[in-house]
Amino acid sequence: MNEAVVLTPERILEVTEDVLRRYGLAKATVVDVARALDVSHGSVYRHFPSKASLREAVAKRWLERIDGPLRQIAEDAAGPAPERLDRWLRTLFAAKRERVCDDPEMFQTYLTLAREACAAVKCHKDGLIDQMSAILVDGVKQGVFSVTDTKATARAIFDATSRFHHPAHADEWKDADLPARVDATLALLLRGLQA
Amino acid sequence: MNEAVVLTPERILEVTEDVLRRYGLAKATVVDVARALDVSHGSVYRHFPSKASLREAVAKRWLERIDGPLRQIAEDAAGPAPERLDRWLRTLFAAKRERVCDDPEMFQTYLTLAREACAAVKCHKDGLIDQMSAILVDGVKQGVFSVTDTKATARAIFDATSRFHHPAHADEWKDADLPARVDATLALLLRGLQA
Repeated sequence: MNEAVVLTPERILEVTEDVLRRYGLAKATVVDVARALDVSHGSVYRHFPSKASLREAVAKRWLERIDGPLRQIAEDAAGPAPERLDRWLRTLFAAKRERVCDDPEMFQTYLTLAREACAAVKCHKDGLIDQMSAILVDGVKQGVFSVTDTKATARAIFDATSRFHHPAHADEWKDADLPARVDATLALLLRGLQA
Repeated sequence: MNEAVVLTPERILEVTEDVLRRYGLAKATVVDVARALDVSHGSVYRHFPSKASLREAVAKRWLERIDGPLRQIAEDAAGPAPERLDRWLRTLFAAKRERVCDDPEMFQTYLTLAREACAAVKCHKDGLIDQMSAILVDGVKQGVFSVTDTKATARAIFDATSRFHHPAHADEWKDADLPARVDATLALLLRGLQA
């Protein structure tokens, strides 16, 4: 092993993503990952006891990278809630759109991994709903939103914006009229929240 | 040919649907349709000059059956617009959901045919947006809706309800919490339209 680099789970996941990008999901093996790290595959298994657990960890890491910037917006309770909710949603849409446009093949790989890791995906989605709920609660406190059930409303917003963040609609994200459609939908939803 | 039944395009389409249901899309041929009608395949070609035109007509017929009940709601200008819009949307969701739940295989067949008939589908979608626009216009006249661009808003409502009518989400339509999610989304959207 390269002595200069300590074998952390994070390092393994980084290299696993490279390997997936190079060989594709169907062909990439733990041995390929170990070889790329210049370690024995036993060293990889010490951190990830099975190929399945490694795949799940890659999916989780991908979801967390989408999650991070969103959480920042949700937790920044200082700003006016409508502007924050609008920014939060647009950040979510952009994150998905960039991933599918920049590297469609890796997007498909991550989608497949995410489908296997359904517990992690559910947790990710619940987390997103919680973040939106927090913004809604702030908006109610600020007197700008009128919402009775914040959780159900957050979920309704998530559902009502599926076309812009759900991977089943990825083919439609390159449409020239997408920005106008996002604007119209967000305007309608924010109006529905107004106190 | 059975002398008692006149060979109309409608009769051919009816039998074509039976044949598709029996043999599946991949195997069904125009000869099968002719045989089921007890006519020569030339008689079928007189009405539909190619297999493609027959397939397109089946797709259009399917779309029209979804369209009919919706148009009635849209054109019944007497009722209060919010109730009509709510009913229109729920009728659309139910039409899609029933089709996929009652006969998933035929739903897939129709979807494939619809994908081929993209001009007909675009026309169908534009028609749905127009119907919603008409309800929005009525609502503005009734003083219950505040909408500046009715067409863009109708499209936003269509987009915001994709999860409940777009076939890409068909797998989610059996979820136990679907009715509650529909209610929450429609409540939010109708609130966004309120004058």
